[in-house]
Amino acid sequence: MKVSVKVPATSANLGPGFDTMGVAFPLYNTVTIEETVMPGSGVLIELVSDFDYKDKAHLEHVPVDENSIIYKAVELLYNSIGQTPGELKITVNSKIPMTRGLGSSSSVIVGALIAANELLGRPADEAALLSIATEIEGHPDNVAPAILGGMLFASLQDDGSVIYKKLPWPEEWKITACVPDFELSTDIARSVLPKEVPMKDAIFNAQRMAMFIDAVHTKDSAMMKLALNDRLHQPYRMNLMPGLADIMNALKYEENVLGCVISGAGSTILIITEKNGAEKAKAIVKNIWHEQNVKVDTYDFPIDYEGAQIIS
Amino acid sequence: MKVSVKVPATSANLGPGFDTMGVAFPLYNTVTIEETVMPGSGVLIELVSDFDYKDKAHLEHVPVDENSIIYKAVELLYNSIGQTPGELKITVNSKIPMTRGLGSSSSVIVGALIAANELLGRPADEAALLSIATEIEGHPDNVAPAILGGMLFASLQDDGSVIYKKLPWPEEWKITACVPDFELSTDIARSVLPKEVPMKDAIFNAQRMAMFIDAVHTKDSAMMKLALNDRLHQPYRMNLMPGLADIMNALKYEENVLGCVISGAGSTILIITEKNGAEKAKAIVKNIWHEQNVKVDTYDFPIDYEGAQIIS
Repeated sequence: MKVSVKVPATSANLGPGFDTMGVAFPLYNTVTIEETVMPGSGVLIELVSDFDYKDKAHLEHVPVDENSIIYKAVELLYNSIGQTPGELKITVNSKIPMTRGLGSSSSVIVGALIAANELLGRPADEAALLSIATEIEGHPDNVAPAILGGMLFASLQDDGSVIYKKLPWPEEWKITACVPDFELSTDIARSVLPKEVPMKDAIFNAQRMAMFIDAVHTKDSAMMKLALNDRLHQPYRMNLMPGLADIMNALKYEENVLGCVISGAGSTILIITEKNGAEKAKAIVKNIWHEQNVKVDTYDFPIDYEGAQIIS
Repeated sequence: MKVSVKVPATSANLGPGFDTMGVAFPLYNTVTIEETVMPGSGVLIELVSDFDYKDKAHLEHVPVDENSIIYKAVELLYNSIGQTPGELKITVNSKIPMTRGLGSSSSVIVGALIAANELLGRPADEAALLSIATEIEGHPDNVAPAILGGMLFASLQDDGSVIYKKLPWPEEWKITACVPDFELSTDIARSVLPKEVPMKDAIFNAQRMAMFIDAVHTKDSAMMKLALNDRLHQPYRMNLMPGLADIMNALKYEENVLGCVISGAGSTILIITEKNGAEKAKAIVKNIWHEQNVKVDTYDFPIDYEGAQIIS
């Protein structure tokens, strides 16, 4: 038996929503799990990538042994029904750039979980899959949109369950991902964050979170422009991303640009625009990064509203 | 010339919205400013209270000299147009309980500002009044609803302006203020707050703020129940309010009770209920506080949507 699951790219945080907000984009990794017939062969994990990054560096970041998060996801699901994985061949077909803050690790966790769940006759429902994926990833803001699609906020509750709500993101607001050719490891990007933050920064972000959710519900562009600011993670990560401070400053007063935020832990940034703001904003990002010898690919992303799908 | 302004009571914070959320209630202080004809008599401030607190302790908290916040408000407005206050008689008719977290100080600041503005021929518009009141009070979450009415979030911007948005609070959700007979000075309640907070608590509140705003827009009671939790101020103030931990625990699993939060810096608490939840919740609050020898008045408050009004 063989199951293939395609899982969208995701972007977490979205400015003020550190460890809170997430959104899915139509760029997919596909995880295929096949029960093999060779006893004792164990679990084989293979990565196939046709993503044409010149350095192919992203290929190096999926460990293909049993320490892999892919194996961990599959094992957790088998264990949850008192089994252990037998002979499996797991293939990841990767189209999401890795270590760029677009949720590629969440996508393989989610794909592996859903495929394994299907192979086992669906012992876990969606809430359980979300909970297990969050346990592996540590926070729900990538895995929730990867499973469910859409733009949403999510929060891990004390009982291990994940509360989320999809938001009615206005179609008029465009999201462009600018993916630079430098990587940023999530571990490093997490390590620069302090354990404690000034109370005034906590208040600052709570206020922007209120503005963000209200702006989405009321399609209030002026409010969204004020909302897309953060003091909990972006200031600490700014030095890890050459040119970012200049980019943010340059976009700040640009007409029809609502904001510029780090996607997840970086290195991708998202620019949120309306009307004809995207082209100008992309040109600004490319110019500033080119001055730093950073190459950049841009994607004008609609939102993926379907989330992970079993495709065969 | 004589101007009277009535200003509603307000409650700030509302759980997760520390220094962010505010709401106005239909209980009013009236500030009257009269130009007197006795040269050299200066500014006289008189407090008239028919609030029947047995200890009358609240009467002691309005200093009636030129250090008064009332005088400061009037002086700031005169100064803003290059004048100084001449001979004025200011009368405060107080119906809002003082030092109980119901915005009585904001109400007199707002009342004095609006009355003085009227006497001076309205040099300041609403945005300027909001900005001046916030400067005096330090944060906009009481003065904004006091001026504007309604339930809203508000944020002081770097340029001194105040951004706010009124929210469509569902009529089905009832707010009851439980006012105990002990006072809590805002200065003391502020002094127990740390300057730095754990990052995870900052994230916790940002998530609850997202839930709160979304729940209001979508009338989602289950989400609001999750939203009405806070880690930025209430835990630190818990010990200043006898019985509060017991009250919150008792209400946590009560049907039709969405939450219990400290009003402003206390001592009043708000219980947010739906359907027939209010009566049971009030009985629980009264019982627990009575065991602590705390007397309590309860007010089932609709929201005041008008804000401060010039009444003569």
